[in-house]
Amino acid sequence: MNEIVIALDAMGGDNAPSETIKGCIDAVSKKDNVKILLVGIDEIIRNELNKYNFDKDKIDIVHAGQVIGNDEVPTIAIKNKKDSSIVVGLNLVKEKKALAFISAGNTGALLTGAITIIKRIKGIERPALGTLLPTEKGYCLLIDAGANVDCKANYLVQFAKMGAVYMENVLRISNPKIGLVNIGAEKEKGNSLTKECYELLENAEINFIGNVEARDITAGVCDVVVCDAFVGNVILKFAEGFGKTILKVIKNEFTADLMSKTGAILAKGAFKRLKNYFDYSDVGGAPFLGLNALVVKAHGSSKHEDFEGAINQCLSFIENDIVGKIQEKI
Amino acid sequence: MNEIVIALDAMGGDNAPSETIKGCIDAVSKKDNVKILLVGIDEIIRNELNKYNFDKDKIDIVHAGQVIGNDEVPTIAIKNKKDSSIVVGLNLVKEKKALAFISAGNTGALLTGAITIIKRIKGIERPALGTLLPTEKGYCLLIDAGANVDCKANYLVQFAKMGAVYMENVLRISNPKIGLVNIGAEKEKGNSLTKECYELLENAEINFIGNVEARDITAGVCDVVVCDAFVGNVILKFAEGFGKTILKVIKNEFTADLMSKTGAILAKGAFKRLKNYFDYSDVGGAPFLGLNALVVKAHGSSKHEDFEGAINQCLSFIENDIVGKIQEKI
Repeated sequence: MNEIVIALDAMGGDNAPSETIKGCIDAVSKKDNVKILLVGIDEIIRNELNKYNFDKDKIDIVHAGQVIGNDEVPTIAIKNKKDSSIVVGLNLVKEKKALAFISAGNTGALLTGAITIIKRIKGIERPALGTLLPTEKGYCLLIDAGANVDCKANYLVQFAKMGAVYMENVLRISNPKIGLVNIGAEKEKGNSLTKECYELLENAEINFIGNVEARDITAGVCDVVVCDAFVGNVILKFAEGFGKTILKVIKNEFTADLMSKTGAILAKGAFKRLKNYFDYSDVGGAPFLGLNALVVKAHGSSKHEDFEGAINQCLSFIENDIVGKIQEKI
Repeated sequence: MNEIVIALDAMGGDNAPSETIKGCIDAVSKKDNVKILLVGIDEIIRNELNKYNFDKDKIDIVHAGQVIGNDEVPTIAIKNKKDSSIVVGLNLVKEKKALAFISAGNTGALLTGAITIIKRIKGIERPALGTLLPTEKGYCLLIDAGANVDCKANYLVQFAKMGAVYMENVLRISNPKIGLVNIGAEKEKGNSLTKECYELLENAEINFIGNVEARDITAGVCDVVVCDAFVGNVILKFAEGFGKTILKVIKNEFTADLMSKTGAILAKGAFKRLKNYFDYSDVGGAPFLGLNALVVKAHGSSKHEDFEGAINQCLSFIENDIVGKIQEKI
C-alpha cells in the first residue's frame, strides 16, 4: 500500500495545537497508509505530541517559526510571513513532499497562498471553496462558499463541474444533481449572472436540474448547489446564525413552564440529537477545488474529530485522483 | 376623525376570498376610521360578505372581472388584463379613491403594475420591497426583499433611507440601526457592489452601523438590513426552508423513543409556541416603498389575521405620512 503524506497546520484554528494533534494521532492510529507532517513551531508541537504514544514513523514535525493571525490581511501576510505554518505547509505540497494541506487558520490567507503557491489546474479560471451542508437527505456541496465574490457565468459552470467530480468520487453519489441558486424555478428568473449561467449549465456535460430556490436547499433537492461566493457565504452564515437563534428559542420555550420543563427532561435524548444536527463536525473541512493539489480549509472552531475527518477526506480525494478527474472534465 | 380608504384585492392569494374578507370584516369592526374597497368579482365577494354582519358604510365592492394567476408573466398580465383585481385596485389608488392597496396575488404583477400605475416618488431610482423578519429582539426590515435583483450602489442607499423612515414611523424604533449585508465586518470586505455602497452609506444621513454578516441578522444586531433583491430573496427563502427542515428534524427526534415521546406530550405548550415562532403571520404584509402611495404585498398563504395586520399597517403608514417623509429624506 502506498503511503500518502498529508501536511497539517498545527497552529491554525481556535483549538490549536491540542485538538489538531489529537485528530492527527487518531487518524494515523486508524489508517495504515497515512503519514502526517505537522507544520508549526517545533517546541509547541513536540510538547503536545509527548502526551501520546504513537508510531513515530507516521508523524513528522516540519518547523515553521511564524503564525498568521485571523485578523491579518491575507495578501500581505502571505508575502511577508514566508516562515508561517500556512506558507511552509503549502510549499511542502508544491515541492511534492506532501499531497495535501489542511489548515483551520486564516481563510483568506490560505486561499490566497494556495493560488499563489500551488497554482490552478490548467484551464480552471477560478478555484472555488466547497462546503458540505447538511440536508434532510444527507449532504449537498455548496460551491463557491468563500473564494470568489464577483463571478462571471463561466466560473460558475466550472464550479458545477468540479463539484460534480467531488460528490461523485468523495461522497460516492452517482450522477450528482446540480442546481443553480436562484430566486425562482423558471429559466428566465434571476439576475444577469444567473440568467447567463443557466444556458451555459444546460449545455454542460453535467446532470443540471435547473434553478434551485434557497428554500429547497436543506430539503436536499440536489447534490451540488452552485452560486458565487457572496451568495454562498450569506447562505452558510445565515444558516449558522439562524440555527443559534432557534436553539435559543427552543431553550426559552422549554423552560417557560413546569410541564414543558418536565417534558424537556424526559426528552433530553431528543435534545441531544437535535443539538448534534446543528453541529457540522462530522463533515470534515471545506475542499478548495481547482488547484494542482488538495487544500482543505477546516472550520476555525474544529475539534479533534473534525481534523480526523479532514484527513480522511484528503485520503479519499487523493486515492480517487480528483485533480486528474477535474482536469479531464474541464 | 378622517376616514382612510384602503383597497384590498379580494381575489389574490391561496385563501381568497374567504380569509381576505374575514380579515377585512375584523379590521373594520375594530377600527373606526377605516373603509375598505374590496376589489374583485362582484358576485363572489357578495356571497362571501353575506356570511357576516357588518357596518355597510365601511365596506364597498369594486368589481373587477379578471384575475391574474400566479404563473402569468407580470408585464404581459398587467398589459392585457386591464380589468384584473390588481390593475383595478392600483388604479383606485392612482385616482385617489383609495390611499393604499393590499394584494396577496402575483408578486411580480403587483410590483410591475405598482411602478407603472402609481409611479415612483420623484428622486427615487428604484422602489424596493421591505419584509419584516423576526429576530431575537423583535423585527428587522429586510430591504430589498424582492424587487431589484441587479442593483447599483446608490439604489441600496435609497433602500436604507426608506427602510429607516419605515421602521422609525411604523414600528416606532427611534434612530433605527442600518446594516449592509456583507461577507465580513470590515469596511474592505465584500463584492464590488457592497464595497462601493459602504462609503456611500457612511456619508448618508442615517444611523449606519456598518457591515452585518448573515449570521448576525436573526440575532437582531440592526433594525434595517440592506441588500439587493437577489440576496434578500435568498435570505428569506432559505429561512423558510431551513425552518421547515428543522421542524421536521425536531418532530423525528421527539418521536424516536418512548421517553422523548412522553416528554414531547408534556411539553406540547412549548412546541406550539415554537411553531408560532416559525409562523410569520403577525407581521402583516411586505411594504413596497418608494411609490407615491403604499402598496402592500401580503404573503400568498395569508390568513385573516394577516390581512387584518396588513390593513392596520396601511393605517399606520398613512397616518404617519411615510410617503411625505421619504420625499423629505431623499
